[in-house]
Amino acid sequence: MTTFQTVALIGRRQTEGVADTLIKVIEYLQQQNIKIMLEKETAIMALNHDLPVIDRNDLKNNCDLIIVVGGDGSMLTAARIAADQGIPVVGVNRGTLGFLTDILPDDIESLGKILAGDFKEEQRFLLSANIKHEDHILSKHTALNDVVLLPSETNRMIEFCVFINNKFMCNYRADGMIVATPTGSTAHSLSGGGPILHPGLDAIVLLPMFSHNLSSRPIVVEGDSAIEIVMAEECRACPNISCDGQALVAIPSGARININKHPDKFKLIHLSDYNYFETLRAKLHWES
Amino acid sequence: MTTFQTVALIGRRQTEGVADTLIKVIEYLQQQNIKIMLEKETAIMALNHDLPVIDRNDLKNNCDLIIVVGGDGSMLTAARIAADQGIPVVGVNRGTLGFLTDILPDDIESLGKILAGDFKEEQRFLLSANIKHEDHILSKHTALNDVVLLPSETNRMIEFCVFINNKFMCNYRADGMIVATPTGSTAHSLSGGGPILHPGLDAIVLLPMFSHNLSSRPIVVEGDSAIEIVMAEECRACPNISCDGQALVAIPSGARININKHPDKFKLIHLSDYNYFETLRAKLHWES
Amino acid sequence: MTTFQTVALIGRRQTEGVADTLIKVIEYLQQQNIKIMLEKETAIMALNHDLPVIDRNDLKNNCDLIIVVGGDGSMLTAARIAADQGIPVVGVNRGTLGFLTDILPDDIESLGKILAGDFKEEQRFLLSANIKHEDHILSKHTALNDVVLLPSETNRMIEFCVFINNKFMCNYRADGMIVATPTGSTAHSLSGGGPILHPGLDAIVLLPMFSHNLSSRPIVVEGDSAIEIVMAEECRACPNISCDGQALVAIPSGARININKHPDKFKLIHLSDYNYFETLRAKLHWES
Amino acid sequence: MTTFQTVALIGRRQTEGVADTLIKVIEYLQQQNIKIMLEKETAIMALNHDLPVIDRNDLKNNCDLIIVVGGDGSMLTAARIAADQGIPVVGVNRGTLGFLTDILPDDIESLGKILAGDFKEEQRFLLSANIKHEDHILSKHTALNDVVLLPSETNRMIEFCVFINNKFMCNYRADGMIVATPTGSTAHSLSGGGPILHPGLDAIVLLPMFSHNLSSRPIVVEGDSAIEIVMAEECRACPNISCDGQALVAIPSGARININKHPDKFKLIHLSDYNYFETLRAKLHWES
Repeated sequence: MTTFQTVALIGRRQTEGVADTLIKVIEYLQQQNIKIMLEKETAIMALNHDLPVIDRNDLKNNCDLIIVVGGDGSMLTAARIAADQGIPVVGVNRGTLGFLTDILPDDIESLGKILAGDFKEEQRFLLSANIKHEDHILSKHTALNDVVLLPSETNRMIEFCVFINNKFMCNYRADGMIVATPTGSTAHSLSGGGPILHPGLDAIVLLPMFSHNLSSRPIVVEGDSAIEIVMAEECRACPNISCDGQALVAIPSGARININKHPDKFKLIHLSDYNYFETLRAKLHWES
Repeated sequence: MTTFQTVALIGRRQTEGVADTLIKVIEYLQQQNIKIMLEKETAIMALNHDLPVIDRNDLKNNCDLIIVVGGDGSMLTAARIAADQGIPVVGVNRGTLGFLTDILPDDIESLGKILAGDFKEEQRFLLSANIKHEDHILSKHTALNDVVLLPSETNRMIEFCVFINNKFMCNYRADGMIVATPTGSTAHSLSGGGPILHPGLDAIVLLPMFSHNLSSRPIVVEGDSAIEIVMAEECRACPNISCDGQALVAIPSGARININKHPDKFKLIHLSDYNYFETLRAKLHWES
Repeated sequence: MTTFQTVALIGRRQTEGVADTLIKVIEYLQQQNIKIMLEKETAIMALNHDLPVIDRNDLKNNCDLIIVVGGDGSMLTAARIAADQGIPVVGVNRGTLGFLTDILPDDIESLGKILAGDFKEEQRFLLSANIKHEDHILSKHTALNDVVLLPSETNRMIEFCVFINNKFMCNYRADGMIVATPTGSTAHSLSGGGPILHPGLDAIVLLPMFSHNLSSRPIVVEGDSAIEIVMAEECRACPNISCDGQALVAIPSGARININKHPDKFKLIHLSDYNYFETLRAKLHWES
Repeated sequence: MTTFQTVALIGRRQTEGVADTLIKVIEYLQQQNIKIMLEKETAIMALNHDLPVIDRNDLKNNCDLIIVVGGDGSMLTAARIAADQGIPVVGVNRGTLGFLTDILPDDIESLGKILAGDFKEEQRFLLSANIKHEDHILSKHTALNDVVLLPSETNRMIEFCVFINNKFMCNYRADGMIVATPTGSTAHSLSGGGPILHPGLDAIVLLPMFSHNLSSRPIVVEGDSAIEIVMAEECRACPNISCDGQALVAIPSGARININKHPDKFKLIHLSDYNYFETLRAKLHWES
């Protein structure tokens, strides 16, 4: 008997190649006598099937593994759903290696190893970001990669200060600030000169974007740190918060953004011979 | 007789300290028997006066020097007006040294030297940016510091390619691109890791912002280069152009932005003992 | 009765101001009836005294606190001695704030608080670096800040590869590599674009210097990682290892440098109101 | 009749593949009835030949083109010889594209186009560096890429100040300083975060290496600038000067290094369809 008996499939619509790979995955799983469910929106794509369809919020107790077909973007969305429901996820890429989706479409047979229990599970942590204004919580957000503070009108400096564990760290006048997990350290943060944080590291990186102060540097703090960003009282640039490149939310002047490690963990499944550095070398062209 | 006989005054409203310094400048110029004109919007501030008021577009033939009271931001606005009309400009700062406004409010007497002909005139070049789509020119812009391409919705990568003198340089997937003059090289571009270009240098720097490709670097080309940015046909991020931090204009997919040296020059007046490096050291805290 | 009864004093000879501050510290401690010992080399400086003199390797069991008078450089030397013998250290600076020496010469009275038990003790970890060649250990080193690999003949690229926990990370062709603790992250590593690691973080940063591969980035790994640098077999640049800017040791081609967290900890004493970020802001001019 | 009738060949000994490519080039030139000379040291390699051998300092009046077989390193050496004697140079690479050697070994026939006059000649400028101490010139150097100031003992900060056109620019405490031409801007300077200078640009970049001051930035000055580096009087780190990675020369404390554009130009021959950006994209992996 396999380790996983019921699998839910998630794939992004309108993305080239996803439908083809999804069909391959379904065929392979059916050969292995795995019970398959299609996530509701994914189901729209795979026309000819008689698989049960399930809402993305009802996966808990109904499946024991999620297979995502797509790129790292699809995984970010799936991660927030899966972490909340405690279900592990494995990613099948559409052609090129991703940081999170490390099974290639030509190697779907290796899903068999994972189903049989031959895999590694990594616990990746998420961030929660709460936006408060005058003691009201305006909104709550979850991010696997990063929480990003940015001006809504482009090219306008924003002003804010940062506290770590209630200690004042620094005032910033900058284009924004990226707060990233180790998972997110190889995404947007890396393009801005941030360091790579090994996924096993319990740490968060804060990266000021285009800081007016030229001696500003990325700073790495402990994963359990309470990070607070306090917006200046009079800021004309109308800043926004974006989580994993989604969920753009306007931040009023004087608002506080509290960023902490989220209690839920994202359970990421890899093949047993997975090597983080191999992915890093390939994605960053370290060997060319 | 002084080198300059008629002076127009420009100052930004609603900026702390500008009105006080403006009054000081007026008193000093009146003592020197200089004919003074107040730019129309500036005139609203200086309540008790009987000075002639002039529109910012009618300065030509009516004055032979512009004195700007304010910071580098006020100078950027004045520069575009002054360059168009061929009138030299000197800047009086409100307290801290600026890159462009190098006369301090406590040293207004040194305006006397400038009026008497004891000064240096620097020619700073401007950029013109024309936005074209399907052979129509959508808009034309002028910038002393920089032309910046940015996404209108924050946190969305934009795609474009760049040609220099009709030769294809590079495809970019990035948060944006800064095209800066030597004057602008110490502004926004510097915060993003761009090099400082000496003001005497006939060169333009192109700085990709948060480029997806980690080996992207700032590139400095000749001042006479024809720079063309071509937006990708399908870009969901709705990019904008901003010139000197102003003039936000939406760029359609497939549009072309042509950036060239502007035919007009900005004539910037300094005291004879002006030293660019001194300003640089002070502003960038190189000596602390 | 005070928490600490016997104090050893260490100060760097030939450094301006050290002798004066040392005398002040001695006078203050004598007023408090603290038993004082002078480290042997330090004793040469303070001419008129009848204090017992002690070798730096015999401090254990003979004193319960070390006071270092000097800068961060003096602390680096003292740290290696103190960590080995398990004695806590407090630093008195000669004028400007240091990252490690946070008591100013004008505030020697605050030593009284520390002696009375009103202090914070931070545990800073050190690195040990063992150099092996063909299964022989050539030398062993300890560093509080950093282990740096550099070419002995300047301007020659060196070639090496790095393993983390026996997993191959990357081949490098570079001017060198800095491996730094959180304590060292604000020293040499910071000048090369490395991130700031909060002192509470259990992590190590690896920073390639002038890497030939332009997409190389600083990488932060867990503090317990086994880091191995393997020199290329044929390297003409004759690399060296330097620990905390000292102890230059030639590395043969094909040698292996094993870098791990050292079992001893450096016990750094701060005043109770010490705030790391305050030091950071002051030293990096974040507020100017 | 061809534009060039007599060609001198230069190739680096002991470099893999050079001899083979050299033989191919000789055969091709003989088919075209070109008179060939072998540079003396190159001649040692190509055993079976009866070609005239010539000293590298006697090329003037004896040949009208130099063909270099090798990499960018070989070109750097040839450039200094060729510029001095006013002879144009074309580079044949051994396999991978170089910044200076853009004819591939599989495309030796395209040398025919160049011989027939179908080519572009670029004028690349060199730097001259004179080291003076107490009014004596200690030594003179020439560089196509860069003049680099570095400590002789590794990991020791050096202190110096820089003047541009006799104006004081900045005091530096750093690991060194790179002064690079546009040609050198894609070499060592690029690894340290320097900008790319288009080869047509008349400019020089100064890049402090690991500067103690975190707001130090690369600065680009006009090509005709007089650059003077003045070593601090008391510097324990015994700095060296290296030109194009060669010619390591010790610099006494208090010495002055004067760096200026060299009067000779390096005449670099390209195929007519040569595109600098194509080389840039390929070498820097901008398209992967």
